[in-house]
Amino acid sequence: MALKAGVVGAAGYAGAELIRLLLAHPEFELTVITSNADEGQPLTAVYPSFVGACDLAFTRHDNPALKECDAVFMAVPHTAAMAQAPALLEAGVSVFDLSADYRLDSVEVYEAWYNAEHTSPELLKTRAFGLPELFPEGLARIAADAAAGKPVLVACAGCYPTATSLGAAPAVRAGWVDGTVIVDAISGVTGAGKRATQRTHFCSASDNFEAYGVGRHRHTPEIEQILGLKDRLVFTPHLAPINRGLLSTVSMPLSQEARSISLEEVVAHYEAFYADCPFVSVLPAGSLPRTASVEGTNACHIGLALHEASGTLIAISAIDNLCKGAAGQAIQCANLVYGFGETCGLPPVALPV
Amino acid sequence: MALKAGVVGAAGYAGAELIRLLLAHPEFELTVITSNADEGQPLTAVYPSFVGACDLAFTRHDNPALKECDAVFMAVPHTAAMAQAPALLEAGVSVFDLSADYRLDSVEVYEAWYNAEHTSPELLKTRAFGLPELFPEGLARIAADAAAGKPVLVACAGCYPTATSLGAAPAVRAGWVDGTVIVDAISGVTGAGKRATQRTHFCSASDNFEAYGVGRHRHTPEIEQILGLKDRLVFTPHLAPINRGLLSTVSMPLSQEARSISLEEVVAHYEAFYADCPFVSVLPAGSLPRTASVEGTNACHIGLALHEASGTLIAISAIDNLCKGAAGQAIQCANLVYGFGETCGLPPVALPV
Amino acid sequence: MALKAGVVGAAGYAGAELIRLLLAHPEFELTVITSNADEGQPLTAVYPSFVGACDLAFTRHDNPALKECDAVFMAVPHTAAMAQAPALLEAGVSVFDLSADYRLDSVEVYEAWYNAEHTSPELLKTRAFGLPELFPEGLARIAADAAAGKPVLVACAGCYPTATSLGAAPAVRAGWVDGTVIVDAISGVTGAGKRATQRTHFCSASDNFEAYGVGRHRHTPEIEQILGLKDRLVFTPHLAPINRGLLSTVSMPLSQEARSISLEEVVAHYEAFYADCPFVSVLPAGSLPRTASVEGTNACHIGLALHEASGTLIAISAIDNLCKGAAGQAIQCANLVYGFGETCGLPPVALPV
Amino acid sequence: MALKAGVVGAAGYAGAELIRLLLAHPEFELTVITSNADEGQPLTAVYPSFVGACDLAFTRHDNPALKECDAVFMAVPHTAAMAQAPALLEAGVSVFDLSADYRLDSVEVYEAWYNAEHTSPELLKTRAFGLPELFPEGLARIAADAAAGKPVLVACAGCYPTATSLGAAPAVRAGWVDGTVIVDAISGVTGAGKRATQRTHFCSASDNFEAYGVGRHRHTPEIEQILGLKDRLVFTPHLAPINRGLLSTVSMPLSQEARSISLEEVVAHYEAFYADCPFVSVLPAGSLPRTASVEGTNACHIGLALHEASGTLIAISAIDNLCKGAAGQAIQCANLVYGFGETCGLPPVALPV
Repeated sequence: MALKAGVVGAAGYAGAELIRLLLAHPEFELTVITSNADEGQPLTAVYPSFVGACDLAFTRHDNPALKECDAVFMAVPHTAAMAQAPALLEAGVSVFDLSADYRLDSVEVYEAWYNAEHTSPELLKTRAFGLPELFPEGLARIAADAAAGKPVLVACAGCYPTATSLGAAPAVRAGWVDGTVIVDAISGVTGAGKRATQRTHFCSASDNFEAYGVGRHRHTPEIEQILGLKDRLVFTPHLAPINRGLLSTVSMPLSQEARSISLEEVVAHYEAFYADCPFVSVLPAGSLPRTASVEGTNACHIGLALHEASGTLIAISAIDNLCKGAAGQAIQCANLVYGFGETCGLPPVALPV
Repeated sequence: MALKAGVVGAAGYAGAELIRLLLAHPEFELTVITSNADEGQPLTAVYPSFVGACDLAFTRHDNPALKECDAVFMAVPHTAAMAQAPALLEAGVSVFDLSADYRLDSVEVYEAWYNAEHTSPELLKTRAFGLPELFPEGLARIAADAAAGKPVLVACAGCYPTATSLGAAPAVRAGWVDGTVIVDAISGVTGAGKRATQRTHFCSASDNFEAYGVGRHRHTPEIEQILGLKDRLVFTPHLAPINRGLLSTVSMPLSQEARSISLEEVVAHYEAFYADCPFVSVLPAGSLPRTASVEGTNACHIGLALHEASGTLIAISAIDNLCKGAAGQAIQCANLVYGFGETCGLPPVALPV
Repeated sequence: MALKAGVVGAAGYAGAELIRLLLAHPEFELTVITSNADEGQPLTAVYPSFVGACDLAFTRHDNPALKECDAVFMAVPHTAAMAQAPALLEAGVSVFDLSADYRLDSVEVYEAWYNAEHTSPELLKTRAFGLPELFPEGLARIAADAAAGKPVLVACAGCYPTATSLGAAPAVRAGWVDGTVIVDAISGVTGAGKRATQRTHFCSASDNFEAYGVGRHRHTPEIEQILGLKDRLVFTPHLAPINRGLLSTVSMPLSQEARSISLEEVVAHYEAFYADCPFVSVLPAGSLPRTASVEGTNACHIGLALHEASGTLIAISAIDNLCKGAAGQAIQCANLVYGFGETCGLPPVALPV
Repeated sequence: MALKAGVVGAAGYAGAELIRLLLAHPEFELTVITSNADEGQPLTAVYPSFVGACDLAFTRHDNPALKECDAVFMAVPHTAAMAQAPALLEAGVSVFDLSADYRLDSVEVYEAWYNAEHTSPELLKTRAFGLPELFPEGLARIAADAAAGKPVLVACAGCYPTATSLGAAPAVRAGWVDGTVIVDAISGVTGAGKRATQRTHFCSASDNFEAYGVGRHRHTPEIEQILGLKDRLVFTPHLAPINRGLLSTVSMPLSQEARSISLEEVVAHYEAFYADCPFVSVLPAGSLPRTASVEGTNACHIGLALHEASGTLIAISAIDNLCKGAAGQAIQCANLVYGFGETCGLPPVALPV
């Protein structure tokens, strides 16, 4: 019998992507979708791609039916998630949170970067961090809890941290990297959210390319935490005129010892690192990833290059920011927590063109 | 046990879409993909979205393994299809042809518009026309043949004819339409094919909108045939800067008797007409279709409007030219021929954004 | 000595285009730009393309400096224009109005379509209609007034009416057209204005094509008026994922007598019709216009085709909706009113790619 | 009297941009355009934006009329330029070369990176390098030659080197930069040239973002030469789905002494550095450049940020790759060589939207 699932913040882009994935998932039944702003509206009025496929309408975030769910996926902004998660857990509902509220280990770092008081810091001790390829243990631990009938909390990783860390971790964890890592990454416009602003207006965003939030993007401390690169990470996000897609180009200075490694050895190391990870593909030397090739899927494609003269390793990784960078990763985590098989219900292949 | 399927012309856009759909289909096993130009290349070298999902490599069109298939999907240009289809049928293989070779009832019309001799006109008598919503009988007839173990031939309808006819047929078949029908339609650039030309160069096609082939497009006689509108159809195709998507705006002068019909009655008539068609959604009065909402799916969304002063019905229909307009429709036909259930294996929902 | 010019509603897209054109115009000096919403902001904060080129800041619409101008260009919505134009004229300032307020000859038609009372209907008698290629007499008449030192009012034609009428007028005025004319037109997203909405959000508008406002678009009565086609015009606007550009495909049923005309004769007739019009290019038979080829310019490219079987003439015209469809046309009108030479200061060539 | 100008390789994108700029330039008369592949074709057949504006047709590269020109602009690939430049100079014609043939000071470096023998290395001694903001002396030197009636040769800088160096030079020349500089840059698709390939096909390039040629791009030695950063530059180019535009994000590790500089001091230093450069705008702290804001112009917008924790200065610069990155820069150089005024004839403002 399928688990009952709800989506809080279902009218946003990540929320709509959760709906798409949950409708296609054999082990979940989507029963509740919430959006305070769109209360009462049918889903199809906001997202016409669901015409003929889903009759649900938006209810309010405080819909008591959420507490009847087995799992609730939260796609609301930070602070809104922690306003609701503790009560759901209390009610026995597992929570897969796509916001930043439970990602950072340190309450101080959270409060400094997000300019908000953390109201349920005790949950940080038990939550699992939702980036399965790099942190499988936490998910395995709470999978045991879930199997024992206990509600669990997963803090799913952000989009830039996911792509960047998947590209960098095999080198960083091998001890190859010394000095400051430069991350220049781009996101499609869905990354800026559904709110209509001058920046997301078609006439501003199309035919244009720009950087934004240099040195101030809130994903910075999350990447530093994942990779253990405190104060050694320069992260410059850019906005590209595509809907979905995130490409992270990570330039890593190699330690003296690591400079003798060949590109083929690097590729082999990455392949071994991700040997058990069904969503990560390490491309052969000479191939580089395209965001279009992972659109709508939970895949991460990684390409590698060496700049020998300066001893720099360049890892480039592509994901779909709304799928592997948000909703898909949440489902992947849920699959692991509930023992459904890591790829269960997730779309295998992007549109070829 | 799954049926063995092959794709001839698999490196083109419709071919790649067939691969995507067949890989996800529970009743087919894709065993052969052919492309003379890409012989020996792995599929992933040409379409990297298949990385990690498919290990097949392209073989030549004359690969004898095609004759071991149960069904072969042909996505080659006209004349290339009829060069190969008879031998496959002879060998007991069913053929789902996406080219124009077997679409037109009249050999004379074919030869006049395609400037080529038809080399297997006898097959026109037994082939079924592949537009299930409007021509279910032919497919039902050959489904019986298939059930009896006989190979069958389906001539799948073209992209513009599919969208245009689904928009116009309920009105035309009701006898409401009198006079010349104006069809202004747009296609995404995939409709122009995979060959790199100045017209399909990003720098020509992006940020631009234009008409092409006015009065000369080869889909004209096919639409005339489907709707019975010989010499009463003005078809003007346009090129829009999107990858996939086809929108057909059909302006139909109403007969004197039909002028008293209200928009609500029109909508109700269309809904009844398509009541048993799982892929067609008639939108409520006031709603109009978007190509993005059907991208990657086999859906057709239809919106309707009346211009009362001139007595004109405007039907606007949206499909994905590569899916419902090509590969998806072929799979839908195969589903009906083999009794798999009309929607079997076809993706239900477009990306919401 | 240059004439002093002001732009009211300068923060909108047509307003910004007026600024671009006026800055480059040798006979105007831009002295005032207004936007109530952006009061006090430098122009470059809203439109960074003016960095290094213009130091003006936005003031309020009631800036008294407007009355020191020789000419004020109004790029505010309907009703806002007529709230301000009479007082400017009273003060001796000529007004070039880009809104709909003074376009329609009939107050009744205006009030029915725009759902607003007309507060200065007396000005309709003296205003000139600003579509120089089709209505040169009115502009010539008020040019004499302007030469005599009197302030004048020009009601510049709308974007869809401009492209559609330039495509249709040579045939309609020749008496060739009989029956209902079908206009399917597309506009780039700038046509929807600068306000950020879900429809103009990049993630909705990109990779999508749709119709909108079918049968209800307010440019309908204006096109009917220009062409004299009351109740014989079906106008269906569409939205294309480009910033600028408007393509109008006009299908005109030919009268019995006109059916014997050849395409070459049609082209020759159009060329003669526009022989003295520097901004209109009639393309040779077989060529069709592209919106990209007129972007940023005041040009109109027209292509022609005949569908002989049904006796239909198809005229396709391309303009830049913000330039020839708005700001450029206003400057062209001003050039004629002030005797500067019709093309003075207007950019001659679009980016080739 | 205007100088006679010719464009060799006029059918490519940089060539077409040269035509656009030369037609609008008050001091040049464009008399010859060449393209072996398009010989005999009117310009308007290849670039319809010139309809009504230019009647020239393409001739062959060996058109003797080139030797009647005062200045020839060469927009052919490397090796093709040096095949023709010496004879033109010999004939007294000045050459503005947009190819790589005369950019690199070292014949050895050229031959290693371009895999071709340099056939006129003696010209490297007298040519001026065409990046006026950073190398004014060379242009001043040959301006004296030109004034004396001697033909001159300018090797115009490449697109990536121009944007990158303008962003980095003020810091590098001040001695602030220590260690390896990371350059992640994007170019619009025009940067890949006019040849239609699978990479430049609309359906591959749109909705996609990718890196290419990592560690192997031929602009690497040119940037190293300009900035004096041999083996200390990691250059990763990316392809963005825009027609024109180049954004270079340059991350520069600061020397110990430079780490105490504030962002305001950095901005002030950059402003002073470019005080006499009419095309360069240094944006205030907190503002970042957009490629759309410089499209079609010769402008370079530079934004700056500091990452204090790691001591890294990030300079981001935006240009139009075909204008300031190619044709516009060539005209700017010619303006300086002939004493026309640096900005003469170059378009001042991009489309605001």
